Amino acid sequence: MPYIVKKELIPQYADTDMMGVVYHANYIKFFELGRTAFIHEAGYSYVEMEQAGYYAPVYDVYATYKRPLVYGDEATISTWLSLNDGIKTVYQYELTNQTGDVCVTGYTTHVIVKKDSFKPVPFKRAFPEWYKTYNRLMENH
Amino acid sequence: MPYIVKKELIPQYADTDMMGVVYHANYIKFFELGRTAFIHEAGYSYVEMEQAGYYAPVYDVYATYKRPLVYGDEATISTWLSLNDGIKTVYQYELTNQTGDVCVTGYTTHVIVKKDSFKPVPFKRAFPEWYKTYNRLMENH
Amino acid sequence: MPYIVKKELIPQYADTDMMGVVYHANYIKFFELGRTAFIHEAGYSYVEMEQAGYYAPVYDVYATYKRPLVYGDEATISTWLSLNDGIKTVYQYELTNQTGDVCVTGYTTHVIVKKDSFKPVPFKRAFPEWYKTYNRLMENH
Amino acid sequence: MPYIVKKELIPQYADTDMMGVVYHANYIKFFELGRTAFIHEAGYSYVEMEQAGYYAPVYDVYATYKRPLVYGDEATISTWLSLNDGIKTVYQYELTNQTGDVCVTGYTTHVIVKKDSFKPVPFKRAFPEWYKTYNRLMENH
Repeated sequence: MPYIVKKELIPQYADTDMMGVVYHANYIKFFELGRTAFIHEAGYSYVEMEQAGYYAPVYDVYATYKRPLVYGDEATISTWLSLNDGIKTVYQYELTNQTGDVCVTGYTTHVIVKKDSFKPVPFKRAFPEWYKTYNRLMENH
Repeated sequence: MPYIVKKELIPQYADTDMMGVVYHANYIKFFELGRTAFIHEAGYSYVEMEQAGYYAPVYDVYATYKRPLVYGDEATISTWLSLNDGIKTVYQYELTNQTGDVCVTGYTTHVIVKKDSFKPVPFKRAFPEWYKTYNRLMENH
Repeated sequence: MPYIVKKELIPQYADTDMMGVVYHANYIKFFELGRTAFIHEAGYSYVEMEQAGYYAPVYDVYATYKRPLVYGDEATISTWLSLNDGIKTVYQYELTNQTGDVCVTGYTTHVIVKKDSFKPVPFKRAFPEWYKTYNRLMENH
Repeated sequence: MPYIVKKELIPQYADTDMMGVVYHANYIKFFELGRTAFIHEAGYSYVEMEQAGYYAPVYDVYATYKRPLVYGDEATISTWLSLNDGIKTVYQYELTNQTGDVCVTGYTTHVIVKKDSFKPVPFKRAFPEWYKTYNRLMENH
């Protein structure tokens, strides 16, 4: 069982669209909130990754919408790892509303690149400790 | 070969992030631009769909990032159909920059729901003419 | 002295632009966060206002940028009332970073309109109790 | 009479909120569209300004909302200069819909700063030709 980080999240009016629900692309920003909380709980910081000279751009993203979040909801985003192969890191996300209904699930895949050149570098080599921590969190040891 | 609609698209400063490129979630908004252009070229209008009492929410979305768009780029989004089974409609997207490099590809799947209840209704039944047109555009007849 | 509501706020990567700071229009969304916190602390709810058949659209907005917020900052938004004349309500905002520097100040003016017609209605008449509470919070009684 | 640059603008679904209209902060992004068109028509480029080592951050912004833009509208943003004193540049904006109704007006004030230090530099000194052109466009010579 992977280590799961939960974070509360209140949709803003700004996040909604004229369908009366959260606009579909804005859930991808909510994924960022979950990922940031996960990294923080793991004891790391994306700010420090950039200060060390690297970015972790998104390689791909998937989201499926089962039930909309609406303004007034108090949502929770759960984030965990499903891949950490030394090159790619995959974060999984599940957004639930205040009654526990699953609203959106998805994932993002990330790689590490050098800030100056955007050249890919293995995560394992650039951040060996962080990589080992993620290996443990994959299995929640 | 499917019918392909191309539309020019200039990233705004607002679309960028501190990585110096377009923020990954904002490409999903660019997909909306492509989809709107496709619907318009097909002779239909999303505004009229809503006026008829329906929404076409996104069922799922996928995007893969091959090369970033940057501020100053003059991009083109190409949109075509890869599924139109009467229930689900899948739009495919390809974003290229001014030198023809493929930057982002992806798809969105849409269903039709009633505005008042969010209850799903087959696209084929709610909009039979539109459905037939899409069948033709799948094969570009 | 007016009643002031403070709320913590962590800028997201999504909020930044290629200048390496929060994009100027996104502070206007932060104002919404402050306003929502203020309404909540005052014992009211914007959701209930809409359920009662009204909107509170923005009549005008002003913001001045003294120092940028950057990714990694832990900001605080302070919100208070500077006008509550029965027709218009003016919320004032001050955004500070974790070292107390004032980053952005501004205000938004709101009126009340009927949801179905967008016709203006005096706040004082539509929500007399809320109006009285705001009068008290203007002077922090 | 100042030189006025007009640009067409189609609101996206992404720009709307659950009020059924364009979300108030998103008009500030539309101002960016108008400003970019103005700079382009004046014969300059913000990309080149940044390549020369400068940013032109927003010093302050004001917007007043007279009538909402809705999805389906075909809007026009008109942009002109109201101040160019060598330090500050003020762009004025007017957004109209397809029937000519004025929807939103406002302005943004910009200064020039060095990219590496965010230290202010007079526009007149950093970009003397651009400054002179703007002086002419203030009076439409």
